[in-house]
Formats: sequence, C-alpha cells, structure tokens
Amino acid sequence: MTNPPLRAIGVVRTPYTQRADTPLQSAFDRATVGCVDLDPRYADALDGLDGFTHAWLLTWLADADAPVVEPELRQVPLLLRDAPQLMGIFATRGPRRPNPIGLSLVRLLDIAGHTIRFAGVDLLDGTIVLDVKPYVSYFDVPKGTVRSGWFDDRLRGGDTRQGAEQCE
Amino acid sequence: MTNPPLRAIGVVRTPYTQRADTPLQSAFDRATVGCVDLDPRYADALDGLDGFTHAWLLTWLADADAPVVEPELRQVPLLLRDAPQLMGIFATRGPRRPNPIGLSLVRLLDIAGHTIRFAGVDLLDGTIVLDVKPYVSYFDVPKGTVRSGWFDDRLRGGDTRQGAEQCE
Repeated sequence: MTNPPLRAIGVVRTPYTQRADTPLQSAFDRATVGCVDLDPRYADALDGLDGFTHAWLLTWLADADAPVVEPELRQVPLLLRDAPQLMGIFATRGPRRPNPIGLSLVRLLDIAGHTIRFAGVDLLDGTIVLDVKPYVSYFDVPKGTVRSGWFDDRLRGGDTRQGAEQCE
Repeated sequence: MTNPPLRAIGVVRTPYTQRADTPLQSAFDRATVGCVDLDPRYADALDGLDGFTHAWLLTWLADADAPVVEPELRQVPLLLRDAPQLMGIFATRGPRRPNPIGLSLVRLLDIAGHTIRFAGVDLLDGTIVLDVKPYVSYFDVPKGTVRSGWFDDRLRGGDTRQGAEQCE
C-alpha cells in the first residue's frame, strides 16, 4: 500500500504548552478556549460552519518533522495508570498510534476570517490541524445501545475542569 | 509548516465498487456489513476493542498514489444537489477537502485476528484505513444544545437503507 500525502492546513492555539498539563480529551476541559488558526487561503472553506454548534478537529499529534516511529501495540492508557492494564492502541484514544491523528470534539464559539474560536481543549499549543468537519448528530450519534469498553468504568461520574479564556 | 507523514495500515472491504453507488454516510446504510482488513502486524493493537459497540474509522478518501489537488473551497454538497447551494468544505462532510480523511462511525460486529467486521458502510471497497478509534460516549457526544447547520433541514426524518451482508 502506498502512503498517502498529507498537508498541514493550520495550527491550534491553546493555553497548553506542556504535554503533561494538557487534558486528555476536550470533554475534560469544556470551558477552556482555543482557536484554530487556519492557513488564510482556506478562509472561504469555513462558509456555513457558523450554523453548527460543534465541530471535529482532526490534528497531527506528533512532530511533523520527525518520522513516526512504530508504536507499542499494547499500551497502558493514562486513564488506567493507577491500576495499570495494557490495552490495544485501537481500543484507546491515546496519541501514540501508527498515524497519530487526533479527533477532538469542540464547541464552536465564533468564526472570523480564517480563525475558529472554540471551547473544549485537549491540544497542545501549536498542534497541526489536518481537517475541520462539522458535527452532525444524525451521522455522529450511534443508534441503539452503546458500550464504551473500559472507559465506561473509568468515566462513570465524569470529570470536568474549568479553564481560562484564550485567543481574545 | 511541514507536512506530516502518513501510513496506510489496512483497507476496507465493502460491497461498493462504484463511487456513485456508495452511501454518503454510514448512518444512511446501517445494515450493510463491511470489514477492515488491517495489516496483520497490527492484530495485537485490537486488544480490548471488543468491549466497544462502535468505532470510528479514519480513512483516506482518495487515490494514495495521486497528489491531492487543492479542492474548490466552496462546493455544492450532494445532499443539496436538488436545490444547489454552495457551502464551505469545512461545513460539509464531502470527500474533496485539503486532506481527504474520512470519518465513519460504524457498529462493531466481531473482531478476529486482524479483521474487524462492522455494520454501517459509506466506503468504497479498497479504501485505505489510517486509524481505528473506539467510540466513547463521554468524549464523542456534545453537552447541551446541538445544531447541525444545513444538515438539520435536509436530514429531518432521516434516510436508512437496507444492504446486503458481506465479508462472511
């Protein structure tokens, strides 16, 4: 199989400059504000996105200049570090995967020019953006019973944090 | 910005061999069965995925051998073809985007070796797989009011189709 080509289309601006301080998922950090600073040539591609309350950010969770090393296939997720258990990486949302593509659900605040302001941050400042997709309930909510494997035990009760406003 | 490297980790096997016949979203085709045929070296990375009812498939919606051409920034979505209206591509889920990465929500049926059998198909047979992520309700369902822009009008009432079983 040939490896497809990828292009950086922008970067995310967030208050997090250290990986250790960055929330694991935007759901853990719904109040913090970040922005997507798109390449200005894509401004017109945002037309119509202001009708949506939420969007997916697809990002590159690694250094773009470095070759991606083949990850360990079983890893202990950070959420299981207190009772360590190995999980296949395709049963985790961790960043160390064959293609370190991040999938972040964010709440859209406003769109101006080539900048998207959003709430819900799980990304390091400067993270490369690959794509922005509108959240569409009809496509993105499963029908019927949903089980989320080992997360169901760990996330019972949830965990939300308040954060500072950025990008203003 | 440097363009990050990407690797094909498997292919999808589906009953669809013509783009024109392929459903736009797996939500339009929840009964059809497909499989992900992962590179065998990633079999161990599936460990634990059987605890989840649903997963995201991240795929490459273009020919991996061809350079991706810069797409039109405003396009008429197929769902709006009967009353044509241009939308910015980041307000659509269409495949012609700067990085043609597909995001498909599928229902997991079974996992054996390096093969994932799933229901809900919106992918051409042979589509390259980039990543498999477990669907986690706590991360993937927005809180509060959700508006899905122009889709809300088009999808009222929904549209589901029955399809044939594959990969058996």
